[in-house]
Amino acid sequence: MSYTISEIAKSLGATALGDDTIRVGALAEPGDAGPNDLALATKPEYAEGLSNGRARAALIWDGADWQGLGLKAAIVAPRPRYAMSGLTAMMDLGEGWGDGIHPSAIIHETAQLGEGVHIGPLTVIGARAVIGAGTRVGPQVSVGADAVIGEGGLIREGVRIAARVRIGARVILNPGAVLGGDGFSFVTPEKSGAEAVRETLGDQGDAAAQSYVRIHSVGSVRLGDDVEVGANAAIDRGTVRDTVIGDRTKVDTLVMVAHNVVVGTDTLLCGLVGIAGSSRIGNNVVLAGQVGVGDNLFVGDNVIAGGGTKILSNVPAGRVILGYPAMKMDAHIDMYKHLRRLGRLVADVAQLKKAVSNGERSD
Amino acid sequence: MSYTISEIAKSLGATALGDDTIRVGALAEPGDAGPNDLALATKPEYAEGLSNGRARAALIWDGADWQGLGLKAAIVAPRPRYAMSGLTAMMDLGEGWGDGIHPSAIIHETAQLGEGVHIGPLTVIGARAVIGAGTRVGPQVSVGADAVIGEGGLIREGVRIAARVRIGARVILNPGAVLGGDGFSFVTPEKSGAEAVRETLGDQGDAAAQSYVRIHSVGSVRLGDDVEVGANAAIDRGTVRDTVIGDRTKVDTLVMVAHNVVVGTDTLLCGLVGIAGSSRIGNNVVLAGQVGVGDNLFVGDNVIAGGGTKILSNVPAGRVILGYPAMKMDAHIDMYKHLRRLGRLVADVAQLKKAVSNGERSD
Amino acid sequence: MSYTISEIAKSLGATALGDDTIRVGALAEPGDAGPNDLALATKPEYAEGLSNGRARAALIWDGADWQGLGLKAAIVAPRPRYAMSGLTAMMDLGEGWGDGIHPSAIIHETAQLGEGVHIGPLTVIGARAVIGAGTRVGPQVSVGADAVIGEGGLIREGVRIAARVRIGARVILNPGAVLGGDGFSFVTPEKSGAEAVRETLGDQGDAAAQSYVRIHSVGSVRLGDDVEVGANAAIDRGTVRDTVIGDRTKVDTLVMVAHNVVVGTDTLLCGLVGIAGSSRIGNNVVLAGQVGVGDNLFVGDNVIAGGGTKILSNVPAGRVILGYPAMKMDAHIDMYKHLRRLGRLVADVAQLKKAVSNGERSD
Repeated sequence: MSYTISEIAKSLGATALGDDTIRVGALAEPGDAGPNDLALATKPEYAEGLSNGRARAALIWDGADWQGLGLKAAIVAPRPRYAMSGLTAMMDLGEGWGDGIHPSAIIHETAQLGEGVHIGPLTVIGARAVIGAGTRVGPQVSVGADAVIGEGGLIREGVRIAARVRIGARVILNPGAVLGGDGFSFVTPEKSGAEAVRETLGDQGDAAAQSYVRIHSVGSVRLGDDVEVGANAAIDRGTVRDTVIGDRTKVDTLVMVAHNVVVGTDTLLCGLVGIAGSSRIGNNVVLAGQVGVGDNLFVGDNVIAGGGTKILSNVPAGRVILGYPAMKMDAHIDMYKHLRRLGRLVADVAQLKKAVSNGERSD
Repeated sequence: MSYTISEIAKSLGATALGDDTIRVGALAEPGDAGPNDLALATKPEYAEGLSNGRARAALIWDGADWQGLGLKAAIVAPRPRYAMSGLTAMMDLGEGWGDGIHPSAIIHETAQLGEGVHIGPLTVIGARAVIGAGTRVGPQVSVGADAVIGEGGLIREGVRIAARVRIGARVILNPGAVLGGDGFSFVTPEKSGAEAVRETLGDQGDAAAQSYVRIHSVGSVRLGDDVEVGANAAIDRGTVRDTVIGDRTKVDTLVMVAHNVVVGTDTLLCGLVGIAGSSRIGNNVVLAGQVGVGDNLFVGDNVIAGGGTKILSNVPAGRVILGYPAMKMDAHIDMYKHLRRLGRLVADVAQLKKAVSNGERSD
Repeated sequence: MSYTISEIAKSLGATALGDDTIRVGALAEPGDAGPNDLALATKPEYAEGLSNGRARAALIWDGADWQGLGLKAAIVAPRPRYAMSGLTAMMDLGEGWGDGIHPSAIIHETAQLGEGVHIGPLTVIGARAVIGAGTRVGPQVSVGADAVIGEGGLIREGVRIAARVRIGARVILNPGAVLGGDGFSFVTPEKSGAEAVRETLGDQGDAAAQSYVRIHSVGSVRLGDDVEVGANAAIDRGTVRDTVIGDRTKVDTLVMVAHNVVVGTDTLLCGLVGIAGSSRIGNNVVLAGQVGVGDNLFVGDNVIAGGGTKILSNVPAGRVILGYPAMKMDAHIDMYKHLRRLGRLVADVAQLKKAVSNGERSD
């Protein structure tokens, strides 16, 4: 797999400069690049790396003196990070799985596989499951009874898709992702201490210790089109209705989405995010790594939450938040400045007390 | 699978009203319910949904004007959330796995399977493992050598049960759960910087950088009866004794329980909770999502910790806590109010300083 | 498997006392120990447990009156915790897997297996994969195309090793660990709200809502020698270069290491730690449980971060930190003391304002 600079530039809608017949077969950081690589030098700070490497061609920042940097050819893209999408797609070597249905896969006779579907070794496909045309299913995957997977998907090693899960088109599920674990929903015969604390914000009252009984999850999980789910992430079944992830939303590695949660479209849930039961997340939301959202909350469209934010109450649309509990990011940054000087403030107040009390006494 | 309103009410110990011969085959939220569903309208705020939906029958809140809401039949339960347990159990469609031992399963000749056990396709059962009567093991599960699983359990897709793990009766393990990964226990030849920091709370001293050697985990994992473990959760082996989860305790999705931890009975560990090595958690505890517990700590019975709480010291029984580090929930809420006004406090003190200094100067 | 006290002491480089011909077959905590166990009584507080148990022999703290405690034999080690490494290695019962290549494994004809390699049942080995001599691969593992695994490794149940991953010698991968999920890297056609927030620390500006396109991960994952990765942990592919874990670094259960991250040598990443994309972690670092590191940051050598620390900016070498956002541990502890008395400070300032204003008025 190799391409000329001309082919690459054309495919990206970018401009080729210099000898656009040079062929490259891989991408590389500037300092690591060899003569058959396309170096990625999208900012001026990569200039030194370029000089140290052996690249003949590079994706460069707008205005770079590419010839002065020793290059024979260059590609200029208006938004280089966006160009990375096309470039990496061209250079992706894939999983090396082969095609067709592996003879060791165990496929229920009532399952329906679309045209061009690949099923990897030792994968299990349940009764009445439906897999859309062109979807590639890796090794050792489980697809439960009555599950439906759309067209053009990529289902990687060891993914678990439980019974009745419905998945849109072009979905990518990374290794170990689980769709359709049980919702964590239990109830005590009488009102529990935790229920009392929710009402009182701190007081359990005299609730007696009790055992839990299980509320079964009779809902399932539903993923829109173009969703991606990260390695070992888990999306639990809904209690009555489905847990839902909207179109084009991306769910990162080790994210947990609990029962009944509804996530909108074009939203990013980054690594180790946890969303508790029945909360609703809007469209175009970004929850950075390790953000937590309490249960039964609402997070509006276009909300951006910084890393580690713990959301304990509703968040209106468009807000940018940080902290535990979450507050507006700029207010948090102000507060934090004051917090770092809290010792001095305490000392100031102590001195003031002394001054005032002396003053009073001196009256 | 369908039931009359009379059958459902009887099974729940609830009261049937109206035409109790109506049959329903599924549960639904009020607005989504069709004529063959039982709508779940357990609070007055669902009245509008009911009017918009097409339900003939509903589980209603006490005192609802069910006929005025257009229903032909209704069920009234004293604690509707508790009734959900029985209702969802009746309506659970299960995993659609079939019965018996799948021919592709690889079962060691010395393993013992009780009556009515189901073993799914491509599951591996190790030497001398014992599986109790009626337990259903899904596809692609690993059961290690000398593992023991009680009666009536449900072991879902891709669960990993390591050698020597012991599991009680009626346990539910969700997809991808791991029981018996290695405990994270390493030691340096000389005292390490981390050990010094524990003693000094902040000072590494002059500990030299060293490499770690492994302390093997020769303990295993032990689960009581009626335990549930969530999708992709992981409970690590103990170092010498076992890591233990008590009867009826529920462990949610992506929870991490480290080596030697002992969790009591009737406790809830919610999504992404992490409990570090050798800590002890009491009975009837609730740790909400993303709570962390440091190593070698004690969390008493009936403790309730709000979402994201980081527990860095022992917690006495019955306490309700929140925050990082954890403090009493009501104190945390008070503190947080002051914190939001910290900028104003700083300004007040600055003004006071000026006023007092002017006063002094004016003397 | 049993050893005499003499054999054990010799193997540990420790001192045997009393009847060193006594044989023990397992380790036990003092109170649980039977006559054929070696009790682990490494601190004076275990004396009572020893008296309650039935141990004949123990690993004891320096200076213990072992005869007075009823023991017939004892082992004294200069650093008992370090001795635990050797002791637990001697007593480790292993996984009980057997040897050789299980006939149900599906091994590509172009894969190369070194001498003495064990491949468990239902494991899949991809095209051109290389597995070093003596490495033991458990059941239901996936090894992708062109992956390379060094000598003497232990790859446990259901591990996923994606295409092109390279792993050093003597690596231990716990059940469900995933190496080589996709990096979470997406880009919008125009500058996004999240990009604006990074620059302004809080203001999205007027960025329009957009959909994401995927940046493929053409890098892979590289692990050094003697690395351990915990159960259900996940290390994602790099975008262009590899994601790298250095020699002797230990990655705990449910840890998430994102694309392009480079972790140094001899570092510990404890349970549920998350490291966002492109960050660099030094050598001999300790990140305690649930620590988070933002993207594109640098954490220097010998940094120690306490449980739950959220690292939102670079951390210089040698620093001991805690909190959200991270600050020096001793400063955090001071701040926290003041924070607990914040209500009193607020009251003091209110009183001062009254006193000063009265004073002013009284002038």
